[in-house]
Amino acid sequence: MKILVANLGSTSFKYRLLDMDTERQLARGGVERIGADESTGFVEIDDQRRELTAEVADHAVAVRLCLAQLTDPEHGCLQDAVEVSAIGFKAVHGGRFSGVQRITSEVLDAMEEMNDVAPAHNPPYIRAMRQLSDNLPDIPLVAAFETGFHATIPASQRNYAVPREWAEKHLVKRWGFHGASHRYIGMRIGEILQRDNLRVISCHLGGSNSLCGIRDGESIGNSLGMSPQSGLPHNNRVGDFDPFALPILMKKTGKSLEQILQDLANRSGLLGVSGVSGDIRDLEEAAADGNADAQLALDLFVDEIRRHLGGLLVALGGADVIVFTGGIGENSRSIRHGVCRDLAELGIELDATANKTAAGETAVHTVGSKTQIWVIPTNEELIVARQTKALMER
Amino acid sequence: MKILVANLGSTSFKYRLLDMDTERQLARGGVERIGADESTGFVEIDDQRRELTAEVADHAVAVRLCLAQLTDPEHGCLQDAVEVSAIGFKAVHGGRFSGVQRITSEVLDAMEEMNDVAPAHNPPYIRAMRQLSDNLPDIPLVAAFETGFHATIPASQRNYAVPREWAEKHLVKRWGFHGASHRYIGMRIGEILQRDNLRVISCHLGGSNSLCGIRDGESIGNSLGMSPQSGLPHNNRVGDFDPFALPILMKKTGKSLEQILQDLANRSGLLGVSGVSGDIRDLEEAAADGNADAQLALDLFVDEIRRHLGGLLVALGGADVIVFTGGIGENSRSIRHGVCRDLAELGIELDATANKTAAGETAVHTVGSKTQIWVIPTNEELIVARQTKALMER
Repeated sequence: MKILVANLGSTSFKYRLLDMDTERQLARGGVERIGADESTGFVEIDDQRRELTAEVADHAVAVRLCLAQLTDPEHGCLQDAVEVSAIGFKAVHGGRFSGVQRITSEVLDAMEEMNDVAPAHNPPYIRAMRQLSDNLPDIPLVAAFETGFHATIPASQRNYAVPREWAEKHLVKRWGFHGASHRYIGMRIGEILQRDNLRVISCHLGGSNSLCGIRDGESIGNSLGMSPQSGLPHNNRVGDFDPFALPILMKKTGKSLEQILQDLANRSGLLGVSGVSGDIRDLEEAAADGNADAQLALDLFVDEIRRHLGGLLVALGGADVIVFTGGIGENSRSIRHGVCRDLAELGIELDATANKTAAGETAVHTVGSKTQIWVIPTNEELIVARQTKALMER
Repeated sequence: MKILVANLGSTSFKYRLLDMDTERQLARGGVERIGADESTGFVEIDDQRRELTAEVADHAVAVRLCLAQLTDPEHGCLQDAVEVSAIGFKAVHGGRFSGVQRITSEVLDAMEEMNDVAPAHNPPYIRAMRQLSDNLPDIPLVAAFETGFHATIPASQRNYAVPREWAEKHLVKRWGFHGASHRYIGMRIGEILQRDNLRVISCHLGGSNSLCGIRDGESIGNSLGMSPQSGLPHNNRVGDFDPFALPILMKKTGKSLEQILQDLANRSGLLGVSGVSGDIRDLEEAAADGNADAQLALDLFVDEIRRHLGGLLVALGGADVIVFTGGIGENSRSIRHGVCRDLAELGIELDATANKTAAGETAVHTVGSKTQIWVIPTNEELIVARQTKALMER
């Protein structure tokens, strides 16, 4: 079975094509600047990259273009587009729909109800999915929701301390996100250490950030709550915030609730604190040049990771492994160093040398560290492809 | 110097009178049901309790009544009311004023600006304080703000990840509260253990709850943030909550932002989750009778304490002492047991027997526990009296 795993942006479509018998990647590709006068597309098959420019009006045209590249008689890897059994999407917030779902109008309606909760994530996905449903009726579309992995979080950590009916009727609870990445990390570290009874803290750090506690392969807690804006600070999204600051902000700035929430979703996080950038690399550069606000953003980021790390450490009663993943988790040795500093007393000790040279799957703890520390590249596409395959086989 | 430490409710005034040369309590007393047809007052001097009923129109009349009892020629402990050098108040949110302040109209105005942030705390205090300022001009009034102890929290933990100007101009930051209690605990455990270089996690658990990390006597973190509704769940206040749940709640319930915030400040916390009560004792009873929502409220409370405990444990790089205080902290062995369960691997081990019989200042850790665990009754009045004295002497 061949599954195409899609990554949707508001004006982009990227994919990986996986052969699920071998779990091997057959191709990757995509189209950018969809809707512009001139869009650019590419496909990579067996390290051969081919590019083209074309007018691509919408996401359905983009997918058709990609399928045409994949079935190109000379350079393609498929005989026919029908070989693609399904397109799997990593979808964010499905509200009353979680787990893995065939995309139907009911599912899209449920996602739409969560637009205010996931303003940066849901609307572009819904728009593109509707468009694909309408225009490519022959290819099954599957949504693997980022909340699915967190269904195992116990009620005592899943609920806010709000009136019960808000949780039950209005779905106000700690949903948690980044499920595909954390699920992969929990599984992969178990394979590496050849153990399935592990207590893992998975640190997914990138543009969007979360920590997840995993016990015996199941999520027991995630730093993300009701919305993808909560938990750790993100590149431009706020992270944990006190709603009782809202009335005072509305009065002092003259802005509406909607406008303040937009600021929290677009102008906050590392970008808001630093006033420089939401990208850790820019902040490290600016801080090295003496920019105090950039340094504050970095310190705040590290301290917030530590705060959530501690919460999960206690929830698990100690951790067997801490794993860093995602663009920052895999590449920023200074963030890893900051997070793990001064924790020897709690059995967590980073090896400075291993941390500096880490590449690919690397152990970065000292010999004496009770908790192992690893850097592991994540593979969300593999999880989405597996979930999509499992659904198609049901 | 004699200081009267006041505890204001919207219809009550309670006090302790302390002789600050010896720090001995000379008297305690108060008036309840202020403004009702018949108010009840009492005074206790040397274990002699005297009660009376009277018509007490407002807080100034209540204070005059109390001063009359204290200067009663036969039963009083003062020659003259002028012996009271000042009245000290444990005030909550002073916005741009923190620390210890003479109560002036500027200070009251600054408190008023924080009414939306501390709706249950600031308005009744401001009303009573204004009234006392106007009617008892001869007695200096001093506010010891609950935020004062937390001025030492580093910027990286004090700031939310919001645009910088929100913190600087609009005072949107993690202020922290319960300063008098945490300051007392930090000081007292140092006296008991005869060390001042301690890393302490102070757990103030009562109707209102917070955890504080203390290093070398200074606060380095508090679970309470911008408002007294944040952090741990409280009896009827929500604790940490995701503001991006607000638009969906407003749509689904038809309520205004103000009404939803009122629900978060009055109908949430342990009361909201359980639907039974905000009092731990009621919840334990209901849970024992099989009420699942009461059990959920208890479990959620314990898990939230553990989450914040972990955050502070990592911030401190390990703790020398964990202290439980406040009504619940001092009296609920089951909550202490729940908080400390399964933490032996992190060096935290509660002694079951000591925990059961704890009364007064009691060590409740096992011999092998790396982190000591104590139960210590708090003494916020002593801190307020000391701070008031120090201000009066400046």
